[in-house]
Amino acid sequence: MYPRIITTFIIIVCLYAPVFSQVHSHGLAVTSSRLAFVPYNFERRNVGENDVLIDILYTGICHTDVHFAKGDFIEGDVPDGYYPLVPGHEIVGRVREIGKSVTKFKVGDYAGVGCLVDSCGECEQCRRGEEQYCAKLVPTYAGVDKTGQKTYGGFSDCVVVTERFAMKIPATVPLERVAPLLCAGITTYSPLKYNNVRSGSKVAVAGFGGLGHLAVKYAVAMGAEVTVFDVVESKRQFAADIGAKRFVNTRNADELLNTADSFDLILNTIPVNHDVEMYVKMLRIDGTMVILGVQKKGQVPTIHTDQLFGRRKIYGSLIGGTVETQEMLDFSAKHKIFPDVEIINNDAKTVDKAFENLDNGKAPFRYVIKIKP
Amino acid sequence: MYPRIITTFIIIVCLYAPVFSQVHSHGLAVTSSRLAFVPYNFERRNVGENDVLIDILYTGICHTDVHFAKGDFIEGDVPDGYYPLVPGHEIVGRVREIGKSVTKFKVGDYAGVGCLVDSCGECEQCRRGEEQYCAKLVPTYAGVDKTGQKTYGGFSDCVVVTERFAMKIPATVPLERVAPLLCAGITTYSPLKYNNVRSGSKVAVAGFGGLGHLAVKYAVAMGAEVTVFDVVESKRQFAADIGAKRFVNTRNADELLNTADSFDLILNTIPVNHDVEMYVKMLRIDGTMVILGVQKKGQVPTIHTDQLFGRRKIYGSLIGGTVETQEMLDFSAKHKIFPDVEIINNDAKTVDKAFENLDNGKAPFRYVIKIKP
Repeated sequence: MYPRIITTFIIIVCLYAPVFSQVHSHGLAVTSSRLAFVPYNFERRNVGENDVLIDILYTGICHTDVHFAKGDFIEGDVPDGYYPLVPGHEIVGRVREIGKSVTKFKVGDYAGVGCLVDSCGECEQCRRGEEQYCAKLVPTYAGVDKTGQKTYGGFSDCVVVTERFAMKIPATVPLERVAPLLCAGITTYSPLKYNNVRSGSKVAVAGFGGLGHLAVKYAVAMGAEVTVFDVVESKRQFAADIGAKRFVNTRNADELLNTADSFDLILNTIPVNHDVEMYVKMLRIDGTMVILGVQKKGQVPTIHTDQLFGRRKIYGSLIGGTVETQEMLDFSAKHKIFPDVEIINNDAKTVDKAFENLDNGKAPFRYVIKIKP
Repeated sequence: MYPRIITTFIIIVCLYAPVFSQVHSHGLAVTSSRLAFVPYNFERRNVGENDVLIDILYTGICHTDVHFAKGDFIEGDVPDGYYPLVPGHEIVGRVREIGKSVTKFKVGDYAGVGCLVDSCGECEQCRRGEEQYCAKLVPTYAGVDKTGQKTYGGFSDCVVVTERFAMKIPATVPLERVAPLLCAGITTYSPLKYNNVRSGSKVAVAGFGGLGHLAVKYAVAMGAEVTVFDVVESKRQFAADIGAKRFVNTRNADELLNTADSFDLILNTIPVNHDVEMYVKMLRIDGTMVILGVQKKGQVPTIHTDQLFGRRKIYGSLIGGTVETQEMLDFSAKHKIFPDVEIINNDAKTVDKAFENLDNGKAPFRYVIKIKP
């Protein structure tokens, strides 16, 4: 029907239209497993009909970012195209543009993005709003989105994300402290809800860092009696300040006395290999330990199955789905639960130093990059 | 008030009265870790006010009896007095005598005894009828009862037990097949109930022996779709006969295809070391594996905690309490669920051979000793 030349032109336009209209982005990337950031310009997909384009204001730094930047989770050599890698999955910003079918946001709203930017939307997990367990989930960075483009994280000036994966940020919250909730917040909130923590629950938090201190705040807000386990003596007072009833320095054998059969739930946030069976012995009959710390290969703790008698359960949990993430944000706003953060500048040298400190266990509870100067 | 000689006499009578009136018993004992039974005469405590004395008719042989007979669970040397050991914790018999406060039984009733003969009765677990997790539980053998006497198991002609730990045996059941329910039955029934198995549940049973075949029967009766994992090809037809939908011979790599993310619940009854992570990978999101097989030291499987992501749970379960054991017996009678047994004679040589077969994995689903000739 059309002359061949017109048909060809239409095909070319269709194929390349997304490229022509892509969103220019600028961020910080690592280009190898050496933790050295460099400024990096790249393209994001154009705003599709269900997408929102968010100008990023703050991005938290998670310990997992360090692992990803170093390629710790990759067996053997990293695949071609893994680098440059732009980390960041604790993002808060303001909506710049919305697709024509978007209903949840209008331009100018605040929005948050966590570890995921898309999923299949059709599987059992997606239907339950638990997209973190969708087999086709798209991670916020180091993934491939529905247009076939590589995803880049929140160490950058903007992000394009399917509406479903952008969270509404309550108006009353301190924006600079909200970003880490999108990963550390939901990671700790979800297992507390899943295990029905309530007034009188005996909860332990092993590892008192970015995840751990949020776990304590949520558990206390839910009415639990909370014990903290850590090795850093200087954190003792802070644990008490945020409502923990007991702080156990696990380097002091005396303090470990009378901990057996004590807890209904242990949230284990320790990010390195450790004696996990020591903690299992602290569970009561029917108690549960949830593994939240992400360890790199060769650092993963092992457990003998005979340690689990008495219906003492152990399992691993991964963030939370979109439904529960929104619930967590609303709960956090209502109970004024936010992480303790150190705001840092958005330059390569500063972020290098923050990663170095995280890698050496010398970081504050959470670093947050102020993306917009 | 009394002349000294009378006082002394009264004291002596009080101290020794229990001895004078103890219950004479005759059974089979091992006297060392060599699996060689010998006839053995011993005393049981007199029938106290809450006790029942049961003439034993049948006693099942459990793989755990082999471990106990060999002292497999003892670190280092066995303690003085461990031998002679009379095994047997799957007991059915007829009530010969009752204490004055007993209400549950009358003389002549059938009664069953499992792994426990007493507990504190006061702790949280006991109040919930889950005495198997009482810290002061008294095992049916190799324990010490409330009078300070060593306990002896069901490889003998009678047993004295606190009324609470004697189960009512429904009148309609085949007595010779009921005994194994008191351990193997409740061990498999309890985790199926705990995990709410119902119509449509996807259940796997790993290890198709004494425990495993009962697990299949219960799970099928509860409406589950059941898959069996074993290494003995000759059991394939029997698995189908009792309602399993699929049998996987784990020695055939082909049959292991398409098993990932398949099950809501796996009952793992394998009594030796094995690749437990292979089975964890078969769990669906939120699925649970229950460890039921008891391994001796050095044979206990280990698991890396990172295998448990996706809220894939693992825990160990131990028999069940008195309330659930009675429920299981009633369920078994209603649904006509009994083990497949081989009845053997009550003599040392025959029991030696049965233990040897159990130790070598050559036993039938369950041996049951016919105690009364």
